[in-house]
Amino acid sequence: MHQLDQQKEYAMSFDHFFKNQLEQLKQDGNYRYFADLERKTGKFPQATNHFEGGTRDVTVWCSNDYLGMGQHPAVIAAMQEAVGRCGTGAGGTRNISGTNHDHLLLEAELADLHGKEAALLFTSGYVSNWTTLATLGAKIPNAVILSDSENHASMIEGIRHSKAEKMIWAHNDVEDLDRKLTACADRPKIVAFESVYSMDGDIAPIAAILDVCEKHGALTYLDEVHAVGMYGLRGGGISEREGLAHRIDIIEGTLGKAFGCVGGYITGSEAMCDFIRSFGSGFIFTTALPPAVAAAARTSIAHLKTSSVERMGQRAQVARLRAGLDKAGIPHLANDSHIVPVMIKDAVKTKMLADYLMDSFGIYVQPINYPTVPRGTERLRFTPSPLHSDADVDHLVVALSELWKQCAVSHVAA
Amino acid sequence: MHQLDQQKEYAMSFDHFFKNQLEQLKQDGNYRYFADLERKTGKFPQATNHFEGGTRDVTVWCSNDYLGMGQHPAVIAAMQEAVGRCGTGAGGTRNISGTNHDHLLLEAELADLHGKEAALLFTSGYVSNWTTLATLGAKIPNAVILSDSENHASMIEGIRHSKAEKMIWAHNDVEDLDRKLTACADRPKIVAFESVYSMDGDIAPIAAILDVCEKHGALTYLDEVHAVGMYGLRGGGISEREGLAHRIDIIEGTLGKAFGCVGGYITGSEAMCDFIRSFGSGFIFTTALPPAVAAAARTSIAHLKTSSVERMGQRAQVARLRAGLDKAGIPHLANDSHIVPVMIKDAVKTKMLADYLMDSFGIYVQPINYPTVPRGTERLRFTPSPLHSDADVDHLVVALSELWKQCAVSHVAA
Repeated sequence: MHQLDQQKEYAMSFDHFFKNQLEQLKQDGNYRYFADLERKTGKFPQATNHFEGGTRDVTVWCSNDYLGMGQHPAVIAAMQEAVGRCGTGAGGTRNISGTNHDHLLLEAELADLHGKEAALLFTSGYVSNWTTLATLGAKIPNAVILSDSENHASMIEGIRHSKAEKMIWAHNDVEDLDRKLTACADRPKIVAFESVYSMDGDIAPIAAILDVCEKHGALTYLDEVHAVGMYGLRGGGISEREGLAHRIDIIEGTLGKAFGCVGGYITGSEAMCDFIRSFGSGFIFTTALPPAVAAAARTSIAHLKTSSVERMGQRAQVARLRAGLDKAGIPHLANDSHIVPVMIKDAVKTKMLADYLMDSFGIYVQPINYPTVPRGTERLRFTPSPLHSDADVDHLVVALSELWKQCAVSHVAA
Repeated sequence: MHQLDQQKEYAMSFDHFFKNQLEQLKQDGNYRYFADLERKTGKFPQATNHFEGGTRDVTVWCSNDYLGMGQHPAVIAAMQEAVGRCGTGAGGTRNISGTNHDHLLLEAELADLHGKEAALLFTSGYVSNWTTLATLGAKIPNAVILSDSENHASMIEGIRHSKAEKMIWAHNDVEDLDRKLTACADRPKIVAFESVYSMDGDIAPIAAILDVCEKHGALTYLDEVHAVGMYGLRGGGISEREGLAHRIDIIEGTLGKAFGCVGGYITGSEAMCDFIRSFGSGFIFTTALPPAVAAAARTSIAHLKTSSVERMGQRAQVARLRAGLDKAGIPHLANDSHIVPVMIKDAVKTKMLADYLMDSFGIYVQPINYPTVPRGTERLRFTPSPLHSDADVDHLVVALSELWKQCAVSHVAA
């Protein structure tokens, strides 16, 4: 074959493979269409949605900017001030000229938030989970990592990357964890779990888990990304609310959800943070977060340490939505968090309902499908914020009721 | 043993392990001390260094904000404007409410920069390399990834994570690559390499590599993170400068170095980008970059598409530094890039020299040690920018000359 023809053929065959895989996703209803949004300071949860042929105003019902801190005037001012003061980027990796004073101030703020000796900042929550678990699992000789069966992808990938032995314990099942810890006595054990699980919104029995971990001398790793800022008197998460933070070795969190910015972190002992700082590939070999992001996040965290009005407002709107759904006979998953999942259990139907909410009611909720949730558990996942008005909540309930009637979705409890 | 005592003992034993590992690093001279800097808009490369007991003014000589775009007034204004317009964060993952219009505008700008159909944005260059190679290697059946022996940690980790077979070809050695491609005929082949290698500053023979890849029908993946913004008439990197971009399947780059912000990206065919968008764990399960970062990066890229003054200024100061070092008899690695490595080949000595430059001359250059470079190749790595004045360059040469005399470092060529 002529060389150029051969080259074109191969290039086409890779693209052909990609296209086939995408076609399969579409046939399964799992292809993802991103909503093109313009967030508008002061208007959240309202946003402008760009769609083919125009724009429209929508109410966002699925944001992880759970408290609307991404538009808080003090947080915005802090970011603008820092951009003006020190520019748009960090200028390097943390080791090579990229450590800015704002990073260190933020790390001190985070250590204080969780009552720990130290904190370490990462470019994202994903990277903080991935790097920390990958590094612990790879470096601690003969370690075994015991992972809750519902842990987030970033933890799963980090554990896999570590090449350490992994044992999966049944979700929130303390007895199963106890059995599995017993099975690996005499080995260094790391127990990884979350406080609030983002898709079902259920909360781990942290005290009971810690009892078992302490009995077996396991290192504990708790992901609080869906809890920091929202639970505990100072926003320290479920571990603060339940007075358990001091018993947890590593608390991981995010700056990208309730704190309204971007980035991830771990907190724990000075030695542990220094160890990950010194050996974690995903920490070492990457440009540091812009100092302006650090400044904004610090302002947001400091605000939520002393202000409870956002948390109270969120709780009120979560309760209002749940009550409205109950009254309308629309089943939703029971849980003790701020996450309100309405199970549809079919990818195509979930997308159809979401499209209808957007097109007919100006309500934006992203259909949640595989691989974010297991196949057959597709859902609409609502996250009421303190900035959703009573009218917003009531409008959502009316829209869902209307839609339930039209689409004859089952009214039986999920 | 009493349960609480046992728990304390275990917790201590983990910390004990961490401390031992850190102690070993210190003994080897590989423990990293981060410089605490305050970048100051309008003053770069000058910055304030916080040290124990005070602060001092230093000239930064190792930043990857290669062109000083992180303090460019238009880039700063774009970021501040976008923060004011739409807040400090994206509000979610790209799929779940986090796609902002600024992300899509930036992706279009990036596709145009490299003359590709599409682009995909990641939270960092590390994550873009890791995710793309991990996804391609894992999803393309029977794939083999051929990796240049000097590839960056993020590519190595991504390939490892994919669990695909990996073949390492000798650095920039086209004949070795040809042999290895021949050895895996009839299999899907992905060739991963960089244009400018960041630590030696050498540039890959891209045309010859592409010839071989095309002969074998391999998919080509080129990391241009140390080249974008700085090479090519529009800042499209070495592949633009050499008129080769259209022959490369995937060009990966960063927004965190010459563009002065943070974030990473890939560009290539519509189908390839959509494939990674749809299957890449590190893309899917993470909060999107703040729209304000996207707006700033887009402004920076657009500026460097039409302005060559920054690139010309950088070239002039690189040439001035090299000439000064030559005249002073200070050996430095020869290469055709903007990176000027002065080899010391000893971790302890490199740190000692860097400390002396900082303490006595106000020159900040981070000692580069393992694992960033192999043991025994420790170095000082200087990155002259267009904002280093002639006096800055001359001061550096004088300082190094002084230090060379005092420390009796070898004057023979590295």
